[in-house]
Amino acid sequence: MAVILDGRAVASKIVEELKAKTQELKMKGITPTLALVLVGDDVYSKRYVDMKIKRCEEVGVKAILNHISQAGEKELLELLKGLNEDPHIHGVMIQLPLPEGFDESKMVERISPEKDVDGLSPSTLGRILLGEEAYLPAGVEAIMELLSRYRVEWVRKHWVILGLSNITGKPLTALLLNRKVTVTTCHPDQKDLSRITRDADVLVVDVARKWFITANMVKRNSVVIDNGNNYEEKKVYGDVDFENVKEIASAITPVPGGVGPLLVTMLVRNTVKAAEKISV
Amino acid sequence: MAVILDGRAVASKIVEELKAKTQELKMKGITPTLALVLVGDDVYSKRYVDMKIKRCEEVGVKAILNHISQAGEKELLELLKGLNEDPHIHGVMIQLPLPEGFDESKMVERISPEKDVDGLSPSTLGRILLGEEAYLPAGVEAIMELLSRYRVEWVRKHWVILGLSNITGKPLTALLLNRKVTVTTCHPDQKDLSRITRDADVLVVDVARKWFITANMVKRNSVVIDNGNNYEEKKVYGDVDFENVKEIASAITPVPGGVGPLLVTMLVRNTVKAAEKISV
Repeated sequence: MAVILDGRAVASKIVEELKAKTQELKMKGITPTLALVLVGDDVYSKRYVDMKIKRCEEVGVKAILNHISQAGEKELLELLKGLNEDPHIHGVMIQLPLPEGFDESKMVERISPEKDVDGLSPSTLGRILLGEEAYLPAGVEAIMELLSRYRVEWVRKHWVILGLSNITGKPLTALLLNRKVTVTTCHPDQKDLSRITRDADVLVVDVARKWFITANMVKRNSVVIDNGNNYEEKKVYGDVDFENVKEIASAITPVPGGVGPLLVTMLVRNTVKAAEKISV
Repeated sequence: MAVILDGRAVASKIVEELKAKTQELKMKGITPTLALVLVGDDVYSKRYVDMKIKRCEEVGVKAILNHISQAGEKELLELLKGLNEDPHIHGVMIQLPLPEGFDESKMVERISPEKDVDGLSPSTLGRILLGEEAYLPAGVEAIMELLSRYRVEWVRKHWVILGLSNITGKPLTALLLNRKVTVTTCHPDQKDLSRITRDADVLVVDVARKWFITANMVKRNSVVIDNGNNYEEKKVYGDVDFENVKEIASAITPVPGGVGPLLVTMLVRNTVKAAEKISV
């Protein structure tokens, strides 16, 4: 039976830790502050932003929403310039995707690296690749946090990463290139895929296909991280056949309740870290 | 018998192509221009810079050396600002390593992305990781160029990359994450390493150990790229036991004469590309 890596439990714990930290910072006269930038009127984007604001407020981080309904790149750049220069703002994030007509990389790149708490600007990603200090994207930080809290051994292991998104798979790989691990990343058309997945001591899956990873594709006693979110009739399913794989793995994340609940909290924690940096 | 991927022959061919291109650009009134920045008085750095200048002049690219013997970060930043703003300069490169006391990433980052023909700034590396258009570092470009000129098949293959330097192994991996390939990167302490190297359809080696890769570590008919430069009594040896491995591989780079001779030429070609971009 595998250890269930419970993202909700870890998130609650971190929320308590963050409450204490923001308390401390406020005693020094610093209110950790996150500026959220929302462009356009996409309903889902708005919902995500609201979740982030709620989590900020829960732990005592001030959230400032900058919602520009109609704007071009010029307006957005001006807004970002102001946020970069404002000493009371510690973290800046742009809710992606941006509406059509925006060069996302170019926009995100304009957030100064010290405030890029989302860890998604090309410059931050380059620093992660080089092994330098940088804020990690929430998905990457969430995975590493789960392993760390449950004291799962991952150094000197063989990681296999299936599915390379810009926000998780690619930056996670970039991070791991600087750790003492062997990493294999697969493209989905890989022939004889299970031969590769069965080599994994740590398997990270993000392929957006319900129950794609079955028990016969997993090595006994390996660690399985499921980053999938497949919605079917308002229920969410992972990329891993959890019920069967958990009988083989030594540790596994459920969906829902694994990586997901940590994402927003990781962003808020990066903001608190950014505020802490100026407090010393 | 393997095809020998002859870097000198490919470099000569590219030099001819570049001569024709600079000729064309000059007819349009554009002289491709590379600004080289050398800080301090390291003998080897000086030698590399001289090689680059020589290659520039050979193909008709104007090379401007900015040698600042004694300088701090402030002076260097000012110099870079001027070079970024100068419309006659198409490429800017800083010879690394910088003397002690310089934050290399921070300095290289200040080269504007359109002029970062060395492809080494965090922002450029981040763009490569994201799969966006960017100048590739010379080592990466050289490897891809050799494979392309000799029409070596590499798509949908399993690449294994041994040795992750900031200038080759890491950016090469970042690039490949966006190609249709499976990539394994290994840390040197990997147990049972040859089991992994024998899985490689394309094996890239950069571990700075003479003849580290022996014939029994290589899959029959694979492609072997040797990025090693191990000096012994003024002779240079690769990381691959070339004489024996070439009997097994389908294609292989010699050392010397493989990747090496292409490096400087790739930098110069990026400069010509940068000049071409403003010509259209």
